[in-house]
Amino acid sequence: MTEQHRTVGRVKEVTSLANPLVKDIKALALKKFRDQQHAFMAEGLKLVIDALDLGWSIKTLVFAKAGLGNPTIEKVAARTVAAGGTVLEVSEKVLSAITRRDNPQMVVGVFSQQFVALKDIRPRDGDVWVALDRVRDPGNLGTVMRTVDAVGARGVILVGDTTDPFAVETVRATMGSIFAVPVAKATTEQFLAWRRGFAGLVAGTHLKGAVDYRSVDFGNRPVLLLMGNEQQGLPDELAASCDHLLRIPQAGRADSLNLAVATGVMLYEIRRGALKLEDIRA
Amino acid sequence: MTEQHRTVGRVKEVTSLANPLVKDIKALALKKFRDQQHAFMAEGLKLVIDALDLGWSIKTLVFAKAGLGNPTIEKVAARTVAAGGTVLEVSEKVLSAITRRDNPQMVVGVFSQQFVALKDIRPRDGDVWVALDRVRDPGNLGTVMRTVDAVGARGVILVGDTTDPFAVETVRATMGSIFAVPVAKATTEQFLAWRRGFAGLVAGTHLKGAVDYRSVDFGNRPVLLLMGNEQQGLPDELAASCDHLLRIPQAGRADSLNLAVATGVMLYEIRRGALKLEDIRA
Repeated sequence: MTEQHRTVGRVKEVTSLANPLVKDIKALALKKFRDQQHAFMAEGLKLVIDALDLGWSIKTLVFAKAGLGNPTIEKVAARTVAAGGTVLEVSEKVLSAITRRDNPQMVVGVFSQQFVALKDIRPRDGDVWVALDRVRDPGNLGTVMRTVDAVGARGVILVGDTTDPFAVETVRATMGSIFAVPVAKATTEQFLAWRRGFAGLVAGTHLKGAVDYRSVDFGNRPVLLLMGNEQQGLPDELAASCDHLLRIPQAGRADSLNLAVATGVMLYEIRRGALKLEDIRA
Repeated sequence: MTEQHRTVGRVKEVTSLANPLVKDIKALALKKFRDQQHAFMAEGLKLVIDALDLGWSIKTLVFAKAGLGNPTIEKVAARTVAAGGTVLEVSEKVLSAITRRDNPQMVVGVFSQQFVALKDIRPRDGDVWVALDRVRDPGNLGTVMRTVDAVGARGVILVGDTTDPFAVETVRATMGSIFAVPVAKATTEQFLAWRRGFAGLVAGTHLKGAVDYRSVDFGNRPVLLLMGNEQQGLPDELAASCDHLLRIPQAGRADSLNLAVATGVMLYEIRRGALKLEDIRA
């Protein structure tokens, strides 16, 4: 109660789109400003609570006037203030402008970006990581992160010049997995150096792959799944770094699977032995 | 050669955005006008050729001035005229306006919409169909159609109030499969009536499903895969129409798979015995 009392005094009420705090948040739509502020935006009360529970650092909590008096929102506001963040109570107009949506969620959180360092990734037996080469589509990246979360894989390594995992569209597509799935960034050279120290099995999907994706025994070793980008598939130097080049059979035209779907099919095959219905926490 | 000669005379050059033909094509961005014109737009020379080869009826071919003299484009223009269609040679500005893209494809085709009638779908042994209940996201629908094509399933049935398969975003996500994959539309009642006459196995995915998706022998019967929508999953009356309610095990939070990914994982399981690397037409 004391905390909530303190919070109320630290909530700023904002109705103007010209407010500098609002302008800073709106700017997060552009990568340039996300990089400058080292921040990103996530929409929805449940997501913000999940993020706080997982230890993400909140910079700003934005909520709609209509949320005043909602005990869950008040509690999140108190946590934000306790963490040194700012709380903004805004008009619907401001919330629509921030999220660029007609019917925005009632709550938006601005968080500090977090990447895991490649050198700190040391997979153990049974761990699965996914490396994406120059992934271009924000929806694909977000959906892959969501699937990585769903199958209990460990995280994602972004290789080369990729789309931004903290873009609004990507964060939306992760459906909250942005906070659960560690992401590393690497140049191709950094990735290849790291890969040389990787003790497990590296499997790439490749249109020239001669091996059926279902014919490999992934066993209990660490597995790295390496996926090429939407247009070109894996370049030669990355393909050469794989222990296996696998192919997913297709009845129609070659290369006709969406990247996120192909990654999902591969991950469910790699985790086939590990995932059982009994494991579900329902 | 004679045909190409005739074509040239029937090509209209358009540089104004106010041109009524251009306005009609631009209007195809909205469902209302797609329905009125019973038409839709597909981008890219290869796609347009595929569509013509598959017997789709072209209303208008639009190409950029820069394509003049390109023999492949000239040939497609001749085919368009022979089919009774109109050919427009336009400026880059017009093409950008039509496609709402900064770097548009050189060729755009406007085609008549085609649906298959539900009563004409009579699956045979080994056939797989996918029914999507109230699918909302155009990208998901397009990606499912692309996957249906990739696994050699027969087509898609849209149940209830769904997103439009002929929306520009959906067509883009199909990557050409819009022309290869038959689509039917049905109300829930029509679908349930049709389902009663369906002689094969109906498998739905459901969060309450107690059966592991890998434990069913799909055999060589016709299979209908029924997928619930992005928010709510299958409603009770559709769930009750299934022979099996299956679940895809997930290690993380419940219901954390994207619809297109879940459909892809299911389809690769159903077609597991049918798809072999040797089948690839490369």
